Amino acid sequence: MDEHFGDNLVAAIARKRAPVCVGLDPVYERLPGPLRKAFRNDRIGALGEFCRQVLTVVAPIVPAVKIQIAYFEIYQSRGVGLYNEIVAFARELDLLVIGDVKRGDIGPSAEAYAAGHLRATNGPDAVTVSGYFGDDGLIPFIEAGAEGGKGIFVLVRTSNPSAAAVQDFVGTDGQRFYEHMAEQVATIGGGEELIGSSGYSRVGAVVGATYPQEARRLREIMPRQIFLVPGYGAQGATAADCAAAFKGDGTGAIVNASRSVIFAYERHRQADWKQAIEAAGRAFAKDLASVVL
Amino acid sequence: MDEHFGDNLVAAIARKRAPVCVGLDPVYERLPGPLRKAFRNDRIGALGEFCRQVLTVVAPIVPAVKIQIAYFEIYQSRGVGLYNEIVAFARELDLLVIGDVKRGDIGPSAEAYAAGHLRATNGPDAVTVSGYFGDDGLIPFIEAGAEGGKGIFVLVRTSNPSAAAVQDFVGTDGQRFYEHMAEQVATIGGGEELIGSSGYSRVGAVVGATYPQEARRLREIMPRQIFLVPGYGAQGATAADCAAAFKGDGTGAIVNASRSVIFAYERHRQADWKQAIEAAGRAFAKDLASVVL
Repeated sequence: MDEHFGDNLVAAIARKRAPVCVGLDPVYERLPGPLRKAFRNDRIGALGEFCRQVLTVVAPIVPAVKIQIAYFEIYQSRGVGLYNEIVAFARELDLLVIGDVKRGDIGPSAEAYAAGHLRATNGPDAVTVSGYFGDDGLIPFIEAGAEGGKGIFVLVRTSNPSAAAVQDFVGTDGQRFYEHMAEQVATIGGGEELIGSSGYSRVGAVVGATYPQEARRLREIMPRQIFLVPGYGAQGATAADCAAAFKGDGTGAIVNASRSVIFAYERHRQADWKQAIEAAGRAFAKDLASVVL
Repeated sequence: MDEHFGDNLVAAIARKRAPVCVGLDPVYERLPGPLRKAFRNDRIGALGEFCRQVLTVVAPIVPAVKIQIAYFEIYQSRGVGLYNEIVAFARELDLLVIGDVKRGDIGPSAEAYAAGHLRATNGPDAVTVSGYFGDDGLIPFIEAGAEGGKGIFVLVRTSNPSAAAVQDFVGTDGQRFYEHMAEQVATIGGGEELIGSSGYSRVGAVVGATYPQEARRLREIMPRQIFLVPGYGAQGATAADCAAAFKGDGTGAIVNASRSVIFAYERHRQADWKQAIEAAGRAFAKDLASVVL
């Protein structure tokens, strides 16, 4: 049986009864004090240990993690080395790994990104990519992912306050620009060869949870796409807000929370930091499962 | 006098009479045979030597280089290490360096990218960034660049064939989406504190050279922005096509050519490869200068 990121994600969500992923956004200054002290001035060492501990804690709870490469690129080559180590470590824990790299380019440059991030043996199972270049920017990633059935999530609707000024641009027939982007993704991501036995494509979409009515509309436009939904927790969206990204049978989306889980110990200073992360991860998974599954 | 990327670029273009930059898109398989042989299986070594030689050849000819990070990310941490070495080497040659990284994210993630790419001492003078998130995605880069007066180029109009399917989306009053994006860039990039003594902002725009009439319209919308213009050479645009990106006084844009210059020896197999690159670089600069200056 060939590997297929969409099928693997749908199965793992069902198995763990958790339509969620934890986002790894490690920031040195926010690491637990004792861990920082133990590594003295070795920031890369401390960040690596934190990431491995967080992954070990959440692996039994969630089907997938989203690793934000920006926090590793601060440290340039050493950080990128750690990023690939952490990706490989997460995969060894049987977590599906989404590399949140938001890469975007065309032609040979896009092929080069796809080679470094999707074809590589220590790369993630899926990456986030920009849709701004149209098909030319997506096809190299889709093709690079064919071997191994790797996935991409195309940025359609983001959850930040200023997104609307760009993405809500109104077209001649009242259609919003992000809906137009969604149609592009549904077309290129709807090809038969991309659809797995779950009915979902290995080309998904990033759809912010800020406005449920938008998610419902995008759910209609992109029936074959799994939605990666940011915005829960630190960014303010509730489980009920996120529910609109799912189909009626509870499939079709995975909700991400990053800082509200991995820095949960900042709100419970007495507790052991790993216990605080585990409790926050379990509460997050339960919150979504109770609304969606 | 404070540093200002826009001022430095305008001055360097005038000094060298060359409104162009050379793009470094190094691909191992296309390196000169003798150089590959000399480094045997050390791909990083061969790529590094090629980049340093190309930079040394073009430094007297052009004011700036654009380094495409995708070709380095193929090699993950070692490639990113080489990227930062090559950026630093180019700056030592008094070249202005544009890091073609097309990064895009929001909030703390965008700050993290900006820290790794613009605040770093071995980072470039400017980077390309995505505009899809609106101001939230741009402000962290603008702020990170304040110290050192570093620049950004926001993706407005790209030169690839499928760009139109996304970027030409038509708004209610007939405005195209890329024109709307240009207005956003003109607004956030038009702040007084961003404008240098040249009259240009350190927030510029990427404007593909494919359609001159579009460049003319974008020139009107973004009077304070320096345009980084891809599409010349391997991508098919001529110097005349590119001219529309410039103001009447010959300022306001810099045209990039990558593969047609750095792989020029593929078309002249008898010649020394460095001589072929030098000749192609000079012809490129002269071609643009003759039309624009």
